[in-house]
Amino acid sequence: MQIGMIGLGRMGANMVRRLLKAGHECVVFDVNKANVEALVNEGATGATSMADLASKLAAPRAVWLMLPAAITSRIAHEVAGSLQKGDAIIDGGNSMYRDAMDLAEELSTKGIDMIDVGTSGGVWGLDRGYCLMIGGPKAAVLRLDPLLAALAPGADAGVTPDPGASTATRGYLHCGPTGAGHFVKMVHNGIEYGVMAAYAEGINLLHAANAGKESREIDAETTPLKDPQYYQFDFDLPAITEVWRHSSVISSWLLDLTAAALKSDPQLATFGGRVSDSGEGRWTLNAAIDTGVPAPVLASALFERFASRGNDEFAGKLLSAMRHAFGGHLEKPAAKS
Amino acid sequence: MQIGMIGLGRMGANMVRRLLKAGHECVVFDVNKANVEALVNEGATGATSMADLASKLAAPRAVWLMLPAAITSRIAHEVAGSLQKGDAIIDGGNSMYRDAMDLAEELSTKGIDMIDVGTSGGVWGLDRGYCLMIGGPKAAVLRLDPLLAALAPGADAGVTPDPGASTATRGYLHCGPTGAGHFVKMVHNGIEYGVMAAYAEGINLLHAANAGKESREIDAETTPLKDPQYYQFDFDLPAITEVWRHSSVISSWLLDLTAAALKSDPQLATFGGRVSDSGEGRWTLNAAIDTGVPAPVLASALFERFASRGNDEFAGKLLSAMRHAFGGHLEKPAAKS
Amino acid sequence: MQIGMIGLGRMGANMVRRLLKAGHECVVFDVNKANVEALVNEGATGATSMADLASKLAAPRAVWLMLPAAITSRIAHEVAGSLQKGDAIIDGGNSMYRDAMDLAEELSTKGIDMIDVGTSGGVWGLDRGYCLMIGGPKAAVLRLDPLLAALAPGADAGVTPDPGASTATRGYLHCGPTGAGHFVKMVHNGIEYGVMAAYAEGINLLHAANAGKESREIDAETTPLKDPQYYQFDFDLPAITEVWRHSSVISSWLLDLTAAALKSDPQLATFGGRVSDSGEGRWTLNAAIDTGVPAPVLASALFERFASRGNDEFAGKLLSAMRHAFGGHLEKPAAKS
Amino acid sequence: MQIGMIGLGRMGANMVRRLLKAGHECVVFDVNKANVEALVNEGATGATSMADLASKLAAPRAVWLMLPAAITSRIAHEVAGSLQKGDAIIDGGNSMYRDAMDLAEELSTKGIDMIDVGTSGGVWGLDRGYCLMIGGPKAAVLRLDPLLAALAPGADAGVTPDPGASTATRGYLHCGPTGAGHFVKMVHNGIEYGVMAAYAEGINLLHAANAGKESREIDAETTPLKDPQYYQFDFDLPAITEVWRHSSVISSWLLDLTAAALKSDPQLATFGGRVSDSGEGRWTLNAAIDTGVPAPVLASALFERFASRGNDEFAGKLLSAMRHAFGGHLEKPAAKS
Repeated sequence: MQIGMIGLGRMGANMVRRLLKAGHECVVFDVNKANVEALVNEGATGATSMADLASKLAAPRAVWLMLPAAITSRIAHEVAGSLQKGDAIIDGGNSMYRDAMDLAEELSTKGIDMIDVGTSGGVWGLDRGYCLMIGGPKAAVLRLDPLLAALAPGADAGVTPDPGASTATRGYLHCGPTGAGHFVKMVHNGIEYGVMAAYAEGINLLHAANAGKESREIDAETTPLKDPQYYQFDFDLPAITEVWRHSSVISSWLLDLTAAALKSDPQLATFGGRVSDSGEGRWTLNAAIDTGVPAPVLASALFERFASRGNDEFAGKLLSAMRHAFGGHLEKPAAKS
Repeated sequence: MQIGMIGLGRMGANMVRRLLKAGHECVVFDVNKANVEALVNEGATGATSMADLASKLAAPRAVWLMLPAAITSRIAHEVAGSLQKGDAIIDGGNSMYRDAMDLAEELSTKGIDMIDVGTSGGVWGLDRGYCLMIGGPKAAVLRLDPLLAALAPGADAGVTPDPGASTATRGYLHCGPTGAGHFVKMVHNGIEYGVMAAYAEGINLLHAANAGKESREIDAETTPLKDPQYYQFDFDLPAITEVWRHSSVISSWLLDLTAAALKSDPQLATFGGRVSDSGEGRWTLNAAIDTGVPAPVLASALFERFASRGNDEFAGKLLSAMRHAFGGHLEKPAAKS
Repeated sequence: MQIGMIGLGRMGANMVRRLLKAGHECVVFDVNKANVEALVNEGATGATSMADLASKLAAPRAVWLMLPAAITSRIAHEVAGSLQKGDAIIDGGNSMYRDAMDLAEELSTKGIDMIDVGTSGGVWGLDRGYCLMIGGPKAAVLRLDPLLAALAPGADAGVTPDPGASTATRGYLHCGPTGAGHFVKMVHNGIEYGVMAAYAEGINLLHAANAGKESREIDAETTPLKDPQYYQFDFDLPAITEVWRHSSVISSWLLDLTAAALKSDPQLATFGGRVSDSGEGRWTLNAAIDTGVPAPVLASALFERFASRGNDEFAGKLLSAMRHAFGGHLEKPAAKS
Repeated sequence: MQIGMIGLGRMGANMVRRLLKAGHECVVFDVNKANVEALVNEGATGATSMADLASKLAAPRAVWLMLPAAITSRIAHEVAGSLQKGDAIIDGGNSMYRDAMDLAEELSTKGIDMIDVGTSGGVWGLDRGYCLMIGGPKAAVLRLDPLLAALAPGADAGVTPDPGASTATRGYLHCGPTGAGHFVKMVHNGIEYGVMAAYAEGINLLHAANAGKESREIDAETTPLKDPQYYQFDFDLPAITEVWRHSSVISSWLLDLTAAALKSDPQLATFGGRVSDSGEGRWTLNAAIDTGVPAPVLASALFERFASRGNDEFAGKLLSAMRHAFGGHLEKPAAKS
């Protein structure tokens, strides 16, 4: 089956490779020509523009966008100019689900189907397959089934003993009308932030379990550590995260990756600790707020990322200013406790 | 190898079964005689008291306690009365790590080794093996290796491609001196609470994604839902949790269990939503507080459990009383938003 | 000076009374005729419709809306139909600041000034004055100064030793262009939620300080209370909140109200603990999320309110289902710990 | 009435001054002789040692300790060596309430009363009086009433319209047996942390309300700011905190101090944002955990302080390592969003 792919970054390029491997015909475009050439060398058909890409596909066309959220809507509108009734635009990026819904409404006047596919799997998807959460009109989603099935992990008896007929057991699922795919992916990432933070906080605590070996100052600014004899542990974090992978309740794919990362760099010296977020965690919270759903864990996970980038600094200054104002407390210079 | 097991509840009994299957000789005791008899029928040797249990083991003895945290220390002291220099007591329960350290110090005067084994795996451990986090004197831990190896999951090429020599890759690890095992298990459970809460909050949000279909009252007590058209989703939670199991970033064993639970009871009607906690989440936070490690996600997860049991009620009354006092606001009767 | 007031609920009616007392001429309208009549009896001029209200005011008119957020924009548009270039609409309700900005843009085509006034003070404002946070075009705000000054608390030497020229020291402030008033009020309320929650959590803890007098069950579902002798306090909450009012660091107006509420009803038996929220707490969080500002305290405060209304129930069921799935744990019946 | 004061730091010295002003006779000691001399010049009697201090007081003695929590118990034992049956030791510092309870039990064998006084008011207490939360045997507390009344703010008709007979309306309260004073003060400070954090988070958000003026990068690591036109505010933080002081719902003494601090240094340039904590916030959380009381706001407030001191760094590195592992994401260099 034919597909056009626009956006050949880490994710888009690998998806093309996985589709090519499954025998699908891929027409590809990217503003960076080198990205196009690389995939042409691997069997894709290159396009020089979005219009060129559209012209190289037979109707009904399927054009997949794999772009930063900030520009997806604009590009969707642009490519729609080269499409016709019955064609489909698929947004597989980390876009806001409302953008997909708005696009669907706008494109419906031209008879173009808007399909949103939440895509999880990261750089591992090429080999493991991508977990696909799909929103859109049923007929259009069914028409794309060969492409979706090829991108998805496929049947894996080891994971689901009794897979049944649902495509969910093969790693892709039509979740509802347009927007449903990105909504489910949004919540997936919201959960992801929470799960990641749980590991990070716990492992950070193991990392600090030797606190009793350090002496603390004795002054009104410092809480005494009452029982230092209970904090004398020097834990081997790579070994502990490894052992947890084996039948513990918290075994997970993220833990697999964490153990591997700690094994290769136990101090994680290549990282500074400034953590980005790409939107879904924020949107998950917005949705929780709109619907009145408590989400303190997901919120805390997001706010830790904000704080890791220094965005809590002025708040800290305010707290220190208040402490100085009521108690004459001076800030202590940098030293952990 | 011989072992004595005291405490034949869900966990203890299954551990005996796994040990028996591996060819070890188990002498078992429980205050509930039926529990003893059941295991005798499966090949264990029954004991009528802790002293009897000790008398049926050859020195150096290994006596494993699998008891509620509230009574472990008392029973350990009691059983120590029947033990001698060179014997070992192993606490495999969810005890506080400091209790193990205190016990170790007390028992050391008698020459008895105190070993603490954090044990994860739940009711599945019988088949999958138990993930074991071990603290104690090196020689004693080494002496028990055959028992620990039998309880642990063992080599599993599927999980660790290159297992190497570390027992961690077989699911058990000597983490440090006595206390280290329970400390690592404590943090494991702290993480577990956070991971569970991340899933629960996210899935609860999916559950509420049809909020736009309900009408909200128009009054000063109710936030209007600005864009109800964006909350019209009726999600199939069993299918969504199933699809996430396949190569998504949040795939995990807890997600496997969640998907299975939702499949068998999509409304989870057999549960009321009152969530217990068994101590480790609390102790994890205490340790984070002592060492100055931020743990907002783990804290939120714990506090959600407290609140699920109604312990937030008086705080809610205070908030309503304040709102009434400054704004004349009256509480609204039960109705979600 | 003349003013039209639309919306004569708790807040609107009292604001009219305060304006009348200061000698201003108030034309009033409400869908509930009884509300109009009550104020006519106190000296206001009644109107039978928004058009009638407009016709009873001389240009340039000032029409103040004091309405639920859900209908403010609609009514603003409606009343604008009876207004003309140079008139002003003032929204003093708890509206979303973006609505005010959008309205300002729409009304600017007609030459009508849109002014948003965040209003704090609740039912006490009649006597104490209202703290006013104002957004809008400078000239229009200046024109309304007599009205704003009358609604505001006014000079109070006790509060600000050196009041200076700023209106801030008299309790009203032009914060910026349209939207600025509601934005500042939004954040004010976000802070309010956090402050209220801090008191509520702390006092709830005092309320539970006798936990050591209750016995806890000994089972794997219940954390033992290690040192019950340290939780034997029966605190007099009305007296404690009263003493805190006197030169403690946490003295505040909310604490004054809390102490009074506890004095009149120490068990707060007239409240159920279901806490409403009226929007600003949510919008504050949305703004924090948009701008990348960590706000875990404000978020936790909001989510506690959501949870108090039972919106955490399905999440609790999920947690219990997971616990049952991995550990065979059954939910315990209702009983605090 | 006579009193001995040990510990003449910021708090202790000012308390002596307030007692001297009320006509009480103060014998003072500090390891720093200059601190003793300063107060001798103001009318106190100096002591060269704890024994000397005890010898200069007539029985029944009252010896007040105003020391860092880390050394209070040790000094209490030391001074007790110079005391006799019927004397009293008062701990007015920020000690853990359990220490006071333990001390009470130990000192009771000598017939010495242990009284714990939670003291709030900071550097302002000299003029405004100290809010005193008192624990201890009733008779001993009554005996000290003249001293307590002198330290406390005293009657203030402006604060409590109908003061009644309770000492609470004069700013001091016998809260219960020994430990009760520090317990109530502990919770007071826990609340204080939450209240401070609420202001700090909210004001930080106002500080960031011009986020729409900055451009954000367009890449997969950065969430686009959807509606930058809504974040164009340049707020005058000193003026806004000032206006809130006047009849707003969040008016408080901490807000008074915050407004003053922002007025004198709008950028708070003298602070770095590293916020200390002196123990009570931690102990409040420990107590909440023990008693099963949800305290997410108080916890978040504490953890923000921990994070402000860099203790979240390794957790951030873990998150970045995970993101790199699953998605190939690289950390971005320092730049806010």
